[in-house]
Amino acid sequence: MPQVPADPDFAARVRASFERQSVMRTLGVTLERVTPGEIELVFPFRAELAQQHGFMHAGVLATVLDSACGYAAFSLMPADAAVLSIEFKLNLLAPAVGDRFIARGRVVRAGRTVTA
Amino acid sequence: MPQVPADPDFAARVRASFERQSVMRTLGVTLERVTPGEIELVFPFRAELAQQHGFMHAGVLATVLDSACGYAAFSLMPADAAVLSIEFKLNLLAPAVGDRFIARGRVVRAGRTVTA
Amino acid sequence: MPQVPADPDFAARVRASFERQSVMRTLGVTLERVTPGEIELVFPFRAELAQQHGFMHAGVLATVLDSACGYAAFSLMPADAAVLSIEFKLNLLAPAVGDRFIARGRVVRAGRTVTA
Amino acid sequence: MPQVPADPDFAARVRASFERQSVMRTLGVTLERVTPGEIELVFPFRAELAQQHGFMHAGVLATVLDSACGYAAFSLMPADAAVLSIEFKLNLLAPAVGDRFIARGRVVRAGRTVTA
Repeated sequence: MPQVPADPDFAARVRASFERQSVMRTLGVTLERVTPGEIELVFPFRAELAQQHGFMHAGVLATVLDSACGYAAFSLMPADAAVLSIEFKLNLLAPAVGDRFIARGRVVRAGRTVTA
Repeated sequence: MPQVPADPDFAARVRASFERQSVMRTLGVTLERVTPGEIELVFPFRAELAQQHGFMHAGVLATVLDSACGYAAFSLMPADAAVLSIEFKLNLLAPAVGDRFIARGRVVRAGRTVTA
Repeated sequence: MPQVPADPDFAARVRASFERQSVMRTLGVTLERVTPGEIELVFPFRAELAQQHGFMHAGVLATVLDSACGYAAFSLMPADAAVLSIEFKLNLLAPAVGDRFIARGRVVRAGRTVTA
Repeated sequence: MPQVPADPDFAARVRASFERQSVMRTLGVTLERVTPGEIELVFPFRAELAQQHGFMHAGVLATVLDSACGYAAFSLMPADAAVLSIEFKLNLLAPAVGDRFIARGRVVRAGRTVTA
C-alpha cells in the first residue's frame, strides 16, 4: 500500500532521532535507508555482542529490529509525535551467522490507535 | 512445580556458559542467582544503551530477558546439551526507567521437545 | 497485587457481557468465577471442535483464553468502557487432551493506555 | 522462494486432513486453494461466532488462521508426517466486520526442526 508521511521532513526527523538512540552507536548500527514507512538498518558482526556459541545474541537482533520497526512507524508520524514499542514477537529462523546483518522495518497499517 | 536438574553440576555449567556470552559483559549484566529452573540477572542503567528518550532500549531488556530464560532452561538440561532460542514475545508494561534492572527467567515446562 | 474494580457492579457487568458473546454459547463455555482482575471459564471437550487428530483445536483454546483475559480486564474497567483485544500470543505446552478444560485470565497491569 | 512439496500428492493429503478437522465444519470454513506452501480458507460471518459487540470473535479468526498456517506447512511435508502448532501470535489490526473472511497461510521457511 502507498505510505504517506504526515511530515514532509520525515527523513531528517528520523535521522535526528536515530542519532539520539545511543544504543545504536554502541552496537555499530547505521541507518542505511529511510523511505515513508520503510527503514533499513545495517550492522556488522561483533564478537562482543555474541552469545555462548559465537552467534550474534538474539536480543541484539531484537534491538535492531525493534528500532527498524519503530523508525518505520516514526517516518509516517506527525512532527510532534513520539514512538514507543508496546510489545514485539521475534521468530528466529536460523542462528545469526554472518559478517553483516540487515534489519528491515515496514509499516503494515498506520493509525492513531492500535485498533483503528 | 519442583524442578529437577538433569546435571547436579548445573550451577557451574550455567556460570561457565554465561561467561562465554560476551554480550552480557558488554551490557554490564551479572548473574546474581542460579537455582534449578530459575535465574536472576542484574544490570545497571547505562546511557550508551538508551533509546531516543533516554530509557533503556527495549531490545536491551529483551537481550537480558532472553538470556535469563535461556539459562533457566539450561539449568535443567543434561551436561551435554545446548540451548538456543527459537522465538520470544515481549510485553513492555512501562518505559524502562531506573538505575538498576532485574531480569528473572523461570521454566514453566521442561521437556525434550517443544510439545511433549 | 490487589486489584480494585472501577465499578462495584463489575460482576454483573461481566456476566451480562459474557451472555452477549454468542461464540461462548456455541463452544459450550460457562463463566465459573468472576473476581476483580481474575476470571475462570470452563468448557467441555466436544468432537465438533477438534482438529484432525481429535485434540481440541488450538484456536478454540485461544478463543476461550482470549475471552478469559478480556473479561479479567473488563472486570476492572469503568462501567462505560469496552474491551477489545489488540493482539495475543499463545504457547501450546501440550496437546489439549481431556474431558474438561479451564481457562484462567488474570490482569498483570491495569491502566488507561497500553504503556502507562 | 519456490516451495517444493515432499509429497506430489500433497493437495489430496491436505484436503483429506482438512475434512477430519471437525471444527472447520462447525465454523463453516471451506478450503478454497491449496498450493505448495500456501493455503486459502474462506468463512462467512456467523452471529453465533460473535463477541459481545457483534464482531467475529478474535479466537475464531485465530482458529482459521492457525489451520491455514498449519495446512500451508502440511502441504510441503512428507506423506507420513503430521503437523501440530506449538505457538502463535496474532495481531488484530481492525475489528472483524464483514460478510466473508479469507485466511491465507504461507510458509516462510520449511525445515525439519524449528531452527535449521
